[in-house]
Amino acid sequence: MATTTYSYNQLYAFTYAVFCGMGSSDTDATTATKTLLSADMRGIDSHGIARLTGYVRLWEAGRVNAQPNIRVVHETPSTAVVDGDAGLGLVVAPFAMSIAIQKAKIAGTGWVAVRNSNHFGIAGYHAMMALQHDMIGIAMTNASALVAPTFSVERMLGTNPIAVAIPADKQPPFVADFATTTAANGKLELLQRKNAPTPEGWVQDKNGATSTDAHELKKGGALLPLGGDREHGSHKGYALGSIVDIFSALLGGASYGPWAPPFPAYVPMPADMPGQGLGHFFGAMRVDAFRPADEFKLHMDNWISRFRAATPAEGHEKVLIPGDPEREMEYIRATEGIPLVESVLDELKKVGEQFGQKL
Amino acid sequence: MATTTYSYNQLYAFTYAVFCGMGSSDTDATTATKTLLSADMRGIDSHGIARLTGYVRLWEAGRVNAQPNIRVVHETPSTAVVDGDAGLGLVVAPFAMSIAIQKAKIAGTGWVAVRNSNHFGIAGYHAMMALQHDMIGIAMTNASALVAPTFSVERMLGTNPIAVAIPADKQPPFVADFATTTAANGKLELLQRKNAPTPEGWVQDKNGATSTDAHELKKGGALLPLGGDREHGSHKGYALGSIVDIFSALLGGASYGPWAPPFPAYVPMPADMPGQGLGHFFGAMRVDAFRPADEFKLHMDNWISRFRAATPAEGHEKVLIPGDPEREMEYIRATEGIPLVESVLDELKKVGEQFGQKL
Repeated sequence: MATTTYSYNQLYAFTYAVFCGMGSSDTDATTATKTLLSADMRGIDSHGIARLTGYVRLWEAGRVNAQPNIRVVHETPSTAVVDGDAGLGLVVAPFAMSIAIQKAKIAGTGWVAVRNSNHFGIAGYHAMMALQHDMIGIAMTNASALVAPTFSVERMLGTNPIAVAIPADKQPPFVADFATTTAANGKLELLQRKNAPTPEGWVQDKNGATSTDAHELKKGGALLPLGGDREHGSHKGYALGSIVDIFSALLGGASYGPWAPPFPAYVPMPADMPGQGLGHFFGAMRVDAFRPADEFKLHMDNWISRFRAATPAEGHEKVLIPGDPEREMEYIRATEGIPLVESVLDELKKVGEQFGQKL
Repeated sequence: MATTTYSYNQLYAFTYAVFCGMGSSDTDATTATKTLLSADMRGIDSHGIARLTGYVRLWEAGRVNAQPNIRVVHETPSTAVVDGDAGLGLVVAPFAMSIAIQKAKIAGTGWVAVRNSNHFGIAGYHAMMALQHDMIGIAMTNASALVAPTFSVERMLGTNPIAVAIPADKQPPFVADFATTTAANGKLELLQRKNAPTPEGWVQDKNGATSTDAHELKKGGALLPLGGDREHGSHKGYALGSIVDIFSALLGGASYGPWAPPFPAYVPMPADMPGQGLGHFFGAMRVDAFRPADEFKLHMDNWISRFRAATPAEGHEKVLIPGDPEREMEYIRATEGIPLVESVLDELKKVGEQFGQKL
């Protein structure tokens, strides 16, 4: 695929200007831009600037409030509920995660459920906010229903990601960030562009039969929970996705399951939504609420070194630690820039025109 | 396979007597028996009375302390670390979970890491302790290394289960309880007894190649993380198993990864263990630390009903909610009794003789 490469700073200036054009405050536009572009830097291209057009369309449709009054509506020593006031999830999520971190400073841990939000970028970015405080960070979100539970043909869950970031000492942190499906939607989109088939276990057709057609979602099919089918543990992926849905949406009062608001602005909102907007769930656990942070981090170093040194299987160079590939990509993109595929660039240029910005 | 069926009360009396014979107090023997047999009642036969002999052998080897001084060694408003004093995990875990519940009553949530413990039965039992308090319960544990991370031939992780129990109103609770591998070891043992092959994606051989030999673990092979291989998301199962290991062992000071103490007493302890015993991690979140419990539980009813009503795929009767199969089994076994296979019964009879008990 033809790509054009941009520096982080070029994409930053453009994205920031678009959010400002939507009416976001300087602070919010800064936060939203950093959150969004962290995905491009970490190589999760489906969740970065490629989504900027989508956010603009949601704003145009009145589904995103560019000047939200994000606020805590309920709290206990270790918990809070945040109402995102239909703001960008890119802004609401860092606000909520910072509440979780504040709670953890005093109570040992902090747990925040969020309602009335929108797509929040990559979960890993929010979880990683905890690291500099010697805390473990946790972030999850529900999302538009694209996933069929085990034995279902109906799409009931989003790709509902979970991120967990754990600090180490000399080693880089452990950062897991994954959709609770066999493959994230972004990987499917890559195959669609290439007109390539998917491996088995990624999607099913509208009757629930195994399929390798990357376009299956447009034909009434569905993504599959991690595991793929019952024999390979899809009931576990289904349970995980459900837990993310319930923690993210039912605790704070967001909409859930098949009623989660769709990301594409042209898809009508579901009828009879049982809550407000999308939901997220964040956690922060102070390491020294359990044991001295230095001690814990030395053991994390030991854990990471030992796993990295595990004997690799034939044909593989080494065993990776969650977060390794994304960190490597961050290094590459900081030096070499961020490549954008033509279709994404065309869309961005159109959005730029709308706000008087060039890319 | 030939089986003999016993009532819950028969197995209860026998198991209780064996734990008392080991020197457990009345209270501890009662707790251990209830915890252990909850697995048999829920149909998770690999984790129930079939393991009693294993616990006795660990006690004989001096690895299980029948009269432990289980205690909180560190705490904050929402966290605690419990030292299990090498006691039965069946007793240590309910103690630790009750601390999590107490913390949640005051701080909104409670999180307890446990070191110096042993195998704790089924995770779901401990998580479900939270339900009667209108709390969400979470339980996880690390375990002897049988699982190879993605790209590894070395066994580095246990089957490291996660359980999450969520209360509903008129609907039964949502109870997920699953190993973070494609298939739990218990399912492998069933196939071994039948000399049947496994589906692909469950195990690999000692070189890391795909295998369908249910006896692969005895030949240097390994269980695989949920997902099976990289293309089907095994890096996510590997991340999940790692998170369970780190939360369960590194936060509280237990041994971890390939150093987790093995369950079979005849397997020597690993050299240079970096912590004490097995580790667990428990969480309790008061629902009304987020929103009124009645409101939440009505939405859980709505969630459960909606998912149960999802259009089933061809060849399937209905979509299940996590916890449905185990609850159905509990009903069956309460009325029809618990079948024990011959090999398990033979072992139990020998253990019974040791303690002057008949089965």
